[in-house]
Amino acid sequence: MHEVPHGEILEELKGLGARKVLIQSPEGLRREAEELARFLEENGLTVILHGEVNYGACDPADEDAKKLGCDALIHLGHSYMRLNLEVPTIFVPAFAKVDVVPALKRNLSEIRKLGKRIALVTTAQHIHRLGEARDFLEKNGFEVVIGRGDSRVSWPGQVLGCNFSSAKVEADGVLFIGSGLFHPLGVAIATKKPTLAVNPYSGDATWMNAEAERLIRKRWAQIAKAMDAKSFGVVVSTKKGQLRLAEAEKVIKLLREHGREARLIAMDRISYPELEGFSFEAYVVVACPRVPIDDSENWRKPVLTPREVELLLGLKEEYEFDEIRGAERRWDEPLGVAVHGPKAGL
Amino acid sequence: MHEVPHGEILEELKGLGARKVLIQSPEGLRREAEELARFLEENGLTVILHGEVNYGACDPADEDAKKLGCDALIHLGHSYMRLNLEVPTIFVPAFAKVDVVPALKRNLSEIRKLGKRIALVTTAQHIHRLGEARDFLEKNGFEVVIGRGDSRVSWPGQVLGCNFSSAKVEADGVLFIGSGLFHPLGVAIATKKPTLAVNPYSGDATWMNAEAERLIRKRWAQIAKAMDAKSFGVVVSTKKGQLRLAEAEKVIKLLREHGREARLIAMDRISYPELEGFSFEAYVVVACPRVPIDDSENWRKPVLTPREVELLLGLKEEYEFDEIRGAERRWDEPLGVAVHGPKAGL
Repeated sequence: MHEVPHGEILEELKGLGARKVLIQSPEGLRREAEELARFLEENGLTVILHGEVNYGACDPADEDAKKLGCDALIHLGHSYMRLNLEVPTIFVPAFAKVDVVPALKRNLSEIRKLGKRIALVTTAQHIHRLGEARDFLEKNGFEVVIGRGDSRVSWPGQVLGCNFSSAKVEADGVLFIGSGLFHPLGVAIATKKPTLAVNPYSGDATWMNAEAERLIRKRWAQIAKAMDAKSFGVVVSTKKGQLRLAEAEKVIKLLREHGREARLIAMDRISYPELEGFSFEAYVVVACPRVPIDDSENWRKPVLTPREVELLLGLKEEYEFDEIRGAERRWDEPLGVAVHGPKAGL
Repeated sequence: MHEVPHGEILEELKGLGARKVLIQSPEGLRREAEELARFLEENGLTVILHGEVNYGACDPADEDAKKLGCDALIHLGHSYMRLNLEVPTIFVPAFAKVDVVPALKRNLSEIRKLGKRIALVTTAQHIHRLGEARDFLEKNGFEVVIGRGDSRVSWPGQVLGCNFSSAKVEADGVLFIGSGLFHPLGVAIATKKPTLAVNPYSGDATWMNAEAERLIRKRWAQIAKAMDAKSFGVVVSTKKGQLRLAEAEKVIKLLREHGREARLIAMDRISYPELEGFSFEAYVVVACPRVPIDDSENWRKPVLTPREVELLLGLKEEYEFDEIRGAERRWDEPLGVAVHGPKAGL
């Protein structure tokens, strides 16, 4: 489904003078990582595969690359996220080959229910098709707004599971193009606007607002379960792009001011079984918002986001999605291979 | 069961001028870590708990401590292993309170079957009782030898799951004191001598040689399953004290010389589910030997130690336990708190 540009990556590595390189990949690009490794070794490089499944550019393996004596890292599947990198890193985003227009065409009458002025968002996988989608929608009488987003994203109109900045624009409703429900759920909750998710693979369209209400009810149930907890473990991840120490310290201060015990816990990949031995009655995960939301069924203690702690303590009443915000975004990433990090001079 | 010397740790932290500290703990000392955190915060320090379950001094969280802005690391449960540390680290070994002599007394007739001259070994948990054990055995007519061991261990007579250097002495048989079967299994295989394990908690004694034969047969079955594999993933761990890169490169070279494909893979905690997406037909784990041996039932592909690859390729015939060897050991660690790392001047 995804094409990895072998020749271009080899050229970049030559430009960097790299001889030993670490390749990092998400679950869906494991075979592509193996093929790239074979190609690079045939061309004289020494290659190591990173064994951990990667979930985003927020978790580059640059420190491991350095530790393993590699002069470069190849990060497959995601575009650059603004972070300080220890070694030159080649980001190879994965763009899906699927055409998005047929699914839009099929669901035009549903899309019309969003209103005339619609915000258009998608994930990195389909970002290269956003122009075609906009053209099609404009030809059909819509006024299309594509938000610039902040520095955590790479392109206008891109949303992450932890960042919906590009969806927060003046519009009647939001049209999300992509698969999976986590992103459009976040869009619906973060924008509080009618949100329609169109899946370019299946051609289906799903209204997210009822789903969002369902999720919010489930999250309130988690909050209720944590209501009487006396002690909270506040968990941060040491993953470079998820390490929200200041936010975690704020949560701890809040909890303590409200008479709860709170303790900061740090770990790489956050999973409940490793925490089982501690005595905390509830947890707050101040890292990737997918962990407390998508994984809460694997936790035997209530697990909240930082925003949900504010609801628990009665400091707010309206449910808010946990986002990791960036600064002002000054440039777009290329729609292809990009090199960042120390020797790349960026 | 274990006493953590709060006052002594606080004094060491004051000596180091530390204000923010990370506490790392194994599964069995989670509550003790929480109590220590509470005590240190009452005394003005800022404390973070490390969330990952720690399995040994081979995996100090010194790099995470640095990343989190801590000026010191407290490593609960294990003594220092010779590694370069990024921050001053207080090692607090955990000594079991159980008396070992009653179990020896109860099993004297079994112990006599080992012969007159016996090697005495134990784990770090019971090392402080080794003198009493030796005295008791000498009074009962044994000639007791306690091997010095190499630099990977902290004290004479100490064995690790990856190092049996202190058991390799001139003796008729080996007496192991401790719980669990992994260590004495390793002792029996590594020394090829009659090995008796005496458990000071239960008072039971277990002859390890039949167990060792059973394990070796199981391992040969793994080797047989990997016999026709064309491609091998050779996995190293980025954990500081398990990163055996040179050994892994040797394994890759050997496999390739014998017509197999082999690829180096690096990850922190080695677990099969993360590797599932790759196409390798077999794996070699060049890290902690417990991973391929204790965890092989969770792997859907055959998983070998580096030593087993030599058997697979027909380079050796006799089964050998995978050990991580140290250099010459120049000093013993104290039987208590010890400080190592950059500012500690060691």
